[in-house]
Amino acid sequence: MADLAISYADVVGAAERIVGIAHRTPVLTSSTADARTGARLFFKCENFQRTGAFKIRGAGNAIAQLPADRRAAGVVAFSSGNHAQAIALAAQLQGVKSVIVMPMDAPESKVAATRAYGGEVVLYDRYAGPPETVANRLVEERGATLLPPFDHPHIMAGQGTAVKELIEEVGPLDLLLVPTSGGGLLAGSAVTAQALSPGCRIIGVEPEAGNDAQQSLRSGQIVRIEPPRTIADGAQSRSVGHHTFPVMQRLVEDILTVSDAELVEAMSFFARSMKIMVEPTGCLGAAAALSGKLDVAGKRVGIVLTGGNIDLSRFAALVQAA
Amino acid sequence: MADLAISYADVVGAAERIVGIAHRTPVLTSSTADARTGARLFFKCENFQRTGAFKIRGAGNAIAQLPADRRAAGVVAFSSGNHAQAIALAAQLQGVKSVIVMPMDAPESKVAATRAYGGEVVLYDRYAGPPETVANRLVEERGATLLPPFDHPHIMAGQGTAVKELIEEVGPLDLLLVPTSGGGLLAGSAVTAQALSPGCRIIGVEPEAGNDAQQSLRSGQIVRIEPPRTIADGAQSRSVGHHTFPVMQRLVEDILTVSDAELVEAMSFFARSMKIMVEPTGCLGAAAALSGKLDVAGKRVGIVLTGGNIDLSRFAALVQAA
Repeated sequence: MADLAISYADVVGAAERIVGIAHRTPVLTSSTADARTGARLFFKCENFQRTGAFKIRGAGNAIAQLPADRRAAGVVAFSSGNHAQAIALAAQLQGVKSVIVMPMDAPESKVAATRAYGGEVVLYDRYAGPPETVANRLVEERGATLLPPFDHPHIMAGQGTAVKELIEEVGPLDLLLVPTSGGGLLAGSAVTAQALSPGCRIIGVEPEAGNDAQQSLRSGQIVRIEPPRTIADGAQSRSVGHHTFPVMQRLVEDILTVSDAELVEAMSFFARSMKIMVEPTGCLGAAAALSGKLDVAGKRVGIVLTGGNIDLSRFAALVQAA
Repeated sequence: MADLAISYADVVGAAERIVGIAHRTPVLTSSTADARTGARLFFKCENFQRTGAFKIRGAGNAIAQLPADRRAAGVVAFSSGNHAQAIALAAQLQGVKSVIVMPMDAPESKVAATRAYGGEVVLYDRYAGPPETVANRLVEERGATLLPPFDHPHIMAGQGTAVKELIEEVGPLDLLLVPTSGGGLLAGSAVTAQALSPGCRIIGVEPEAGNDAQQSLRSGQIVRIEPPRTIADGAQSRSVGHHTFPVMQRLVEDILTVSDAELVEAMSFFARSMKIMVEPTGCLGAAAALSGKLDVAGKRVGIVLTGGNIDLSRFAALVQAA
């Protein structure tokens, strides 16, 4: 795999670097979920991760590997989601300055959370141009390093550490279901599963409305789509990355899609039966199994629950309607 | 401790008996909670337990110890809460029939859940007399064994297994905070903590409106109160038990109380910061620490989160108001 952006050795290195930055999260099981699917499901609870999502794994690994002469100038990211808070906290924990470019109309709670983790927030007008323009200006002016949300080898390797912990804890898997947006988590997970559980089938799951990864994998070239309308707000990327796609082509069996209704049903299941809050994007992998869309009977299935960041009022409204 | 109802050896025996009946639940920690209290808090997540509460530990242990000649006639319990579902499932898993006496106006969801776990539900009119009358008639007619919710050595020993797992996992504690109603969990936890972490201070926490355990411990005799009005619906017992009280007198330092508002604040903290659902009663121990009512700074503190059974609509209404 010399031509892929990352190897399993990079994931092992990342796991060492993020000690003290990311938590080792628990793996939960559910007799009810197992009875319903006929499988043995292992849920890796990244909703319990610091900042509420797996993103701090990649952020922590990337910041730890900044060259010494780049640390003082800090890092830049553009995101209104989990990547923003992950970069802010991972930077703060390593004594590095961070600037997060967020849209002016981002929820106040997200802006406040990013600032609470020590990030400087720069707001931009999303109708005046893309965030890249603002971010690139900060890179030029300050000499800061831009950390993209998924298409970077250090980010991808960091994200792979969740599945490393999962397989080390529960043993070999027959199948791994991974929420998929730009493919950073999927690529890191695939490299890891292939190394630790050879023969494990690796399947990405994305929202029905935003099936660019599915189209890309099935057509053999990166397909770019309009921003999809879905409640899975962490899976609205418009295309997979140039680093992540070759890994997917080599190691990922297929990409499945689930509907928003299936995501809500899964969220409701987690709340009612397992007493945990999982954000819609975090339910992507689980929804493929719980909905019966993918037959998992008789299999040992790893499922990454990627995050738990959702406003309580929205959470309540969604699960009560289910 | 020969004169107490249970010893630590009984808890060890219970732990062996409930393998395959109760889950070993995870212990969660929270950087945010630690920063807020200045302590190191270890949350034993019995909200993730089978049936959604710790009660299956005691139920499983008690049913496992039924004499051979009593098994065929089954068991009886009266409860509209977590004890009902625990007895039903623990009985089903051990091939024993169960009858649960519930009030006619119990929520349909609780009746349905109890039936789903294999329990026969007998409804009674709570305005026509106490449930004991109905339960005792079933005991006489069928020869079934009545399993009380807390005041029974096998129940108490079973409940102690949660803290056994906690201390074995995280090591010695300075302080243990335990939600308290009739004292079954508190007694089992106290015996266990004294054995595994000598010197650990053991404190029970009950609702302000129903401070019978506090009055009892401070006055040296069992005080009986009217059914208290509190959102902690699992802590509405009117008095502690004759088996549980002597254990409390010997091993428990004090009983603290928290208000309903403090319980809601703790519930909201668990939802927002830790992405878990804890029922109001389950927040009793945590609320004492998170509210600042008890100074825990610098200490290693074990906290049992006893359950997660709360209707989603009620949960949403409570945490949104907080």
